[in-house]
Amino acid sequence: MPYVDFSPSPRAADLTARVKDFIETEISPAEEDYHRDLAEARRTGDPWQPLPLIEELKTKARERGLWNLFLPHEHAGEYAARFGTDGGEGLTNVDYAPIAELTGRSAIAPLVLNCNAPDTGNMEVLLRYGTDAQKQEWLEPLLDGTIRSAFTMTEPGVASSDATTMEATAVVDGDEVVVNGRKWWSTGVGHPDCKIYVFMGLTDLPENQQSADRHHRHSMVLVPRDTPGVKIERMLDTMGMYDEPLGHGEVSFTDVRVPASNIISGPGEAFAIAQGRLGPGRVHHCMRLIGVAELALELACRRGLERTAFGKPLANLGGNRERIAEARIAIDQTRLLVLNAAWKLDQGGPLNALSEVSQIKVAAPAMAQQVVDFAIQLHGGAGLASDFPLAAAWTAARSLRIADGPDEVHRGVVARLELGKYK
Amino acid sequence: MPYVDFSPSPRAADLTARVKDFIETEISPAEEDYHRDLAEARRTGDPWQPLPLIEELKTKARERGLWNLFLPHEHAGEYAARFGTDGGEGLTNVDYAPIAELTGRSAIAPLVLNCNAPDTGNMEVLLRYGTDAQKQEWLEPLLDGTIRSAFTMTEPGVASSDATTMEATAVVDGDEVVVNGRKWWSTGVGHPDCKIYVFMGLTDLPENQQSADRHHRHSMVLVPRDTPGVKIERMLDTMGMYDEPLGHGEVSFTDVRVPASNIISGPGEAFAIAQGRLGPGRVHHCMRLIGVAELALELACRRGLERTAFGKPLANLGGNRERIAEARIAIDQTRLLVLNAAWKLDQGGPLNALSEVSQIKVAAPAMAQQVVDFAIQLHGGAGLASDFPLAAAWTAARSLRIADGPDEVHRGVVARLELGKYK
Amino acid sequence: MPYVDFSPSPRAADLTARVKDFIETEISPAEEDYHRDLAEARRTGDPWQPLPLIEELKTKARERGLWNLFLPHEHAGEYAARFGTDGGEGLTNVDYAPIAELTGRSAIAPLVLNCNAPDTGNMEVLLRYGTDAQKQEWLEPLLDGTIRSAFTMTEPGVASSDATTMEATAVVDGDEVVVNGRKWWSTGVGHPDCKIYVFMGLTDLPENQQSADRHHRHSMVLVPRDTPGVKIERMLDTMGMYDEPLGHGEVSFTDVRVPASNIISGPGEAFAIAQGRLGPGRVHHCMRLIGVAELALELACRRGLERTAFGKPLANLGGNRERIAEARIAIDQTRLLVLNAAWKLDQGGPLNALSEVSQIKVAAPAMAQQVVDFAIQLHGGAGLASDFPLAAAWTAARSLRIADGPDEVHRGVVARLELGKYK
Amino acid sequence: MPYVDFSPSPRAADLTARVKDFIETEISPAEEDYHRDLAEARRTGDPWQPLPLIEELKTKARERGLWNLFLPHEHAGEYAARFGTDGGEGLTNVDYAPIAELTGRSAIAPLVLNCNAPDTGNMEVLLRYGTDAQKQEWLEPLLDGTIRSAFTMTEPGVASSDATTMEATAVVDGDEVVVNGRKWWSTGVGHPDCKIYVFMGLTDLPENQQSADRHHRHSMVLVPRDTPGVKIERMLDTMGMYDEPLGHGEVSFTDVRVPASNIISGPGEAFAIAQGRLGPGRVHHCMRLIGVAELALELACRRGLERTAFGKPLANLGGNRERIAEARIAIDQTRLLVLNAAWKLDQGGPLNALSEVSQIKVAAPAMAQQVVDFAIQLHGGAGLASDFPLAAAWTAARSLRIADGPDEVHRGVVARLELGKYK
Repeated sequence: MPYVDFSPSPRAADLTARVKDFIETEISPAEEDYHRDLAEARRTGDPWQPLPLIEELKTKARERGLWNLFLPHEHAGEYAARFGTDGGEGLTNVDYAPIAELTGRSAIAPLVLNCNAPDTGNMEVLLRYGTDAQKQEWLEPLLDGTIRSAFTMTEPGVASSDATTMEATAVVDGDEVVVNGRKWWSTGVGHPDCKIYVFMGLTDLPENQQSADRHHRHSMVLVPRDTPGVKIERMLDTMGMYDEPLGHGEVSFTDVRVPASNIISGPGEAFAIAQGRLGPGRVHHCMRLIGVAELALELACRRGLERTAFGKPLANLGGNRERIAEARIAIDQTRLLVLNAAWKLDQGGPLNALSEVSQIKVAAPAMAQQVVDFAIQLHGGAGLASDFPLAAAWTAARSLRIADGPDEVHRGVVARLELGKYK
Repeated sequence: MPYVDFSPSPRAADLTARVKDFIETEISPAEEDYHRDLAEARRTGDPWQPLPLIEELKTKARERGLWNLFLPHEHAGEYAARFGTDGGEGLTNVDYAPIAELTGRSAIAPLVLNCNAPDTGNMEVLLRYGTDAQKQEWLEPLLDGTIRSAFTMTEPGVASSDATTMEATAVVDGDEVVVNGRKWWSTGVGHPDCKIYVFMGLTDLPENQQSADRHHRHSMVLVPRDTPGVKIERMLDTMGMYDEPLGHGEVSFTDVRVPASNIISGPGEAFAIAQGRLGPGRVHHCMRLIGVAELALELACRRGLERTAFGKPLANLGGNRERIAEARIAIDQTRLLVLNAAWKLDQGGPLNALSEVSQIKVAAPAMAQQVVDFAIQLHGGAGLASDFPLAAAWTAARSLRIADGPDEVHRGVVARLELGKYK
Repeated sequence: MPYVDFSPSPRAADLTARVKDFIETEISPAEEDYHRDLAEARRTGDPWQPLPLIEELKTKARERGLWNLFLPHEHAGEYAARFGTDGGEGLTNVDYAPIAELTGRSAIAPLVLNCNAPDTGNMEVLLRYGTDAQKQEWLEPLLDGTIRSAFTMTEPGVASSDATTMEATAVVDGDEVVVNGRKWWSTGVGHPDCKIYVFMGLTDLPENQQSADRHHRHSMVLVPRDTPGVKIERMLDTMGMYDEPLGHGEVSFTDVRVPASNIISGPGEAFAIAQGRLGPGRVHHCMRLIGVAELALELACRRGLERTAFGKPLANLGGNRERIAEARIAIDQTRLLVLNAAWKLDQGGPLNALSEVSQIKVAAPAMAQQVVDFAIQLHGGAGLASDFPLAAAWTAARSLRIADGPDEVHRGVVARLELGKYK
Repeated sequence: MPYVDFSPSPRAADLTARVKDFIETEISPAEEDYHRDLAEARRTGDPWQPLPLIEELKTKARERGLWNLFLPHEHAGEYAARFGTDGGEGLTNVDYAPIAELTGRSAIAPLVLNCNAPDTGNMEVLLRYGTDAQKQEWLEPLLDGTIRSAFTMTEPGVASSDATTMEATAVVDGDEVVVNGRKWWSTGVGHPDCKIYVFMGLTDLPENQQSADRHHRHSMVLVPRDTPGVKIERMLDTMGMYDEPLGHGEVSFTDVRVPASNIISGPGEAFAIAQGRLGPGRVHHCMRLIGVAELALELACRRGLERTAFGKPLANLGGNRERIAEARIAIDQTRLLVLNAAWKLDQGGPLNALSEVSQIKVAAPAMAQQVVDFAIQLHGGAGLASDFPLAAAWTAARSLRIADGPDEVHRGVVARLELGKYK
């Protein structure tokens, strides 16, 4: 393994400190109220209508220059100056990673700082591959935080771990593209501001004579939500949670027609785009999970010191101290692994970090799931209820062992590259 | 370890076969509709109003003589003939265990067969320790399935893993007992038929001169729900799920007065009662978890054979077959361990099976959690949503690593008895 | 899972009690001296010359009727009366299992009771498949304990997990069979009494026109050690241990000629024989591992109570009590699983217990390895040295994750049968 | 976690490259012969007489300037110029770590490069705390590679995980110090060049009026091996291996008298010295374990590609690829964790890295044990024998879960510091 340097630039260190302060002074104090109001909306109102608090916090974040910090160093270009932070450039992955970790401690921070998935990934796709017209119409309002977006890829009818099994279609018909199919786990479609879907489907159909190999038959298409034929069939729960107001939807596309110019980077380019899109996004997810795990361990330590049973603080009973130590070790080594992937991405882009990105995608969710599970156990019944953020944190970690490629697929990538050294 | 015999009596084998048939032909076919209707009620109605299907199935179950099968061999007495099955006696733990396993495959079967916790445990307490008046007033309608009950023990303010830290009080005042305190995770209080709470509180207060050691200061009191001062503060979710229409509640008791004759088995007897209550109940829980795990493994195998990725059935990819094998091994050895605990209970009662009951309380939930987690993974995103019973199954297994004594306490019991051999 | 009954027959219970007494009063008291003398022989003499103690103990065991207890109920026939115990029949697998467990607590007990692998498996093969002449020449002295035997199957040049890759040959040439090849991990060949090898090789060569499928091309041949062309190339160590005086050898066979009548059950029958041979043998191995684990847990508990650090007995530090509990749970559930496999074998023979036998072959070594590893840890440095039987126990458990089929192959069998339910 | 930089200095990068080349071209090619000759010596000669190869390689290493690379940046002083490499300074921990990793791939490289434990730790102690006379007499020949040393701390009669339980004594009597007690696991005492023992014992005896707390009562004393009263009672095996010609001894000290000037840093300073000594030493151990694990994974991959079973390379069977991926992930994240500890040591010394050093002491041996265990499994029987370095590697990793503080003690340190954040 070549040597690594995880030092942030001075500007990144300053931004990290300011994000930390903003979360501690503005977001965290409001969070308990936010969740209480959201729970109330679930019982008696419409939890899919965003609570006004988020917009208020977004305004504050933007005023403080803590906005679109995810903007990638390599592709941000002029947009960093126009929509980014203090007119500066986009951050490197190593620079942004500690910021992502901090936002992982809060359920709403990513939204507040306009750094929420899948908007970040969609914006990055538009930055890298979008035409000027596409950028003007969709990227700018996304960077502005006035609209949201979804990424519709996973399908209910096939094993999406192998994306080539995809059944949805995006067939070019003259100067239009006709979109058909059913997608699910489309995150964010529940939000009223979610105006644009990045849709992935098969363009080079199997029944035609195929010139392209199976990784060059799919296209990514920008489908505005209001296009006729687009229908949100239902919202899906994850372990009973709906993650309102963003949520995860099952969406049907029936003879949906959009201009052929809505295809991103041309027909057949979907896999190439997806590949580039997922590296930084996975670093973000994984760093947020580090933040999740840190929060869980902090809560476990505090509970372990405060509560008493059998005449001792819980922390001193049985194997609890050993488990606290194992959690600390697991968090620290996983953080370093994620920083390492970020550094490899910065050094040479996604192709330089194939193994590293897959490594963290396996390691971070499993670590976070384990640490949160321990924290739940130390909280007893309280850990399972919404009184603490632990149940939601567990679900987030568990979901990420499936979303963005299941563990098994990523282990396959790592093994292939490892065995390749000896062939 | 002495030798064991897990063979059921002919009558038990016949009942098991009939329960299997009833679940397959009556309960399972109705289950999908039931869950769809319940989901609909959550969105638009009142999920706490029981759907009529349950009462219909209860009637059928009773007509077929599949009713109150949990009735314990040792304590069922005349009630087995009056409210039990085909006029026969109560079953032994070994006899009942395979029936409990079968009911674990269905979310509603325990309710339908009038074998649902905590009613079963409460009925057993009344059978063993109740006065004739208590039995007539509360046991008979419970056996009749016309009312339900709750067990209010766990408290939000203390570490309930050490029950002696309990803060609620049940103070005798003349011929009344005055009940105060706050309880949570009181399962079943959401149901409109839940009429009676078994309440546990401190009678021999610390500020008084205490004659009793710390395991003889608490009493169990029958508190009708409608008594003034009883208030359900809120219903709690477990990983986002409310388990309607039974649910888990937080309940406050404020100067609640009931006759002193509502104390079960006399003041200070709560721990003695709790001890006897928990052995069979834990066998039931654990056998149901065996059923949960069997169902999960079946779903995983079916999904693994049906879905294809990378040109192969999922089951043939990577380590999936090894994980299927590990699941089979884990299920089978845990079932045998639970049967062993049942057999020890049958041979000599709870004191004969202290280690065995704690062993299964550690082993079965952890096993089920692991097997269900694997089944979720093989289902991809579908496994996390309510489309499959896996998310609820995971939550049930996870909860039982905390409910009825957390893993750590049970490991402590096993270790104490193990080390005791060498002291 | 059908119901099971692990109760031993009264005769088996009596024999178990007598074996326990014999081990406690005769074998265990001699064992420390035995190991000291063996260590001395390693330094200054020839550890491959058996120490006289073993023969003395064998005589005592035979006098007490504790001899050849492994003799299988189904195949023992007249030999049980002539060479077995108190003129009685062979024991069932369920009957013998607790005896095997007891012998697992001692490194020399299996030898002393003439129940040592691979002699037991070889004797069983001769009982089931041998001609009268083969029985008279080899089975009777083995039952008499005057000679020993080896089973030469595994080869250094191929992956023996797939036995069809075997390269050694046993070619019929008129009334002779010509044996060629190199075998290793041939257990027992170091002992001077080891007079007969059961050799497995390819008879129906690939270069010939093959009529047989790949599981009917191999033969088992009785090859006396002194036949010209047989050479023990070297003795192999397992984690540094040679297991003198039996040991594990690498043996070359060069144009070794024996009468064709030395083929067991005819040419091409090797796989059929191997299949039948391995069921009970695996139960024996696994039950001995239960004994190994019980001994390790006992040593861990005793050490944990006797030694003090940081002002407390080691047992009370950190997670040690939880680990003791986990060990107890793991041992008990594995024992029950092994008894279950034994019961299935008794009910319907090897084909009735394919999954069960593979299950225990995975579960028991892994469990024993884990429990012994914990016991080593609690002993500190002492646990790693030969001062305690733990290092040897660990090695025995670890080896059995490879010997008699590696874990992965057995998991494959379990998974195949599990998935077969849904095809 | 503050940001980290694991980049080596240009000189360190150059030295690392040269060590890699030296191991590949000089040490590795000789290693098979070395082990064969050593095995032969075990059978027929005296394995405690070092084979001449080591001295030949030492000469070559020194000629190439690859000598005493462990010399610590902070304390090497003039000795780096006199005995170190190319007249340069000592390396930082971050600089030396990759070199230590490389040496971990070879059983003899640390010895050849004069970087072997416990000599390195003893030299560091003398550098930091030794008087000029002590340095001249013992440090210089150690740096010269003409003598070796041992560290005698662990005792057979007490739980050495708690060093305050130590029973050996070092009592000042006028201008002499009288040493008594029994030590074991004294690594290196088997070597004929091992001339000096660093002995730790109690100076401020409990029966005296104690002025010092329990961490200021012990002294470290330089005891030449030839002093009357010093006796090597026996050499200890680790899982059957003696690690000749260095080995691990049990040593008795009976009224051993040395000048009081042999006390290092004055009476009562042993714990202070030990604390400073163990930080870098643990980094060295852990980085060598990274090298061990890398070698094991490489062997596993090669074997997995070369051997075939069931018609496929072993690597493609069952869960093997997933396990290869898990091994890669585990190695990489552990390496980063060790580099992080090295970096913290470099930034602020042992007190700055208490948690980090304990973290790696838990994580690295467990990781290496796991990876090697997997590699053994993939090698089948060969993996258990001395034909491959895997059995020895496993033993080395397993030993280090006990040596230099057992896992449980290090987890305790990590947990104490973690909980300390919230007190």
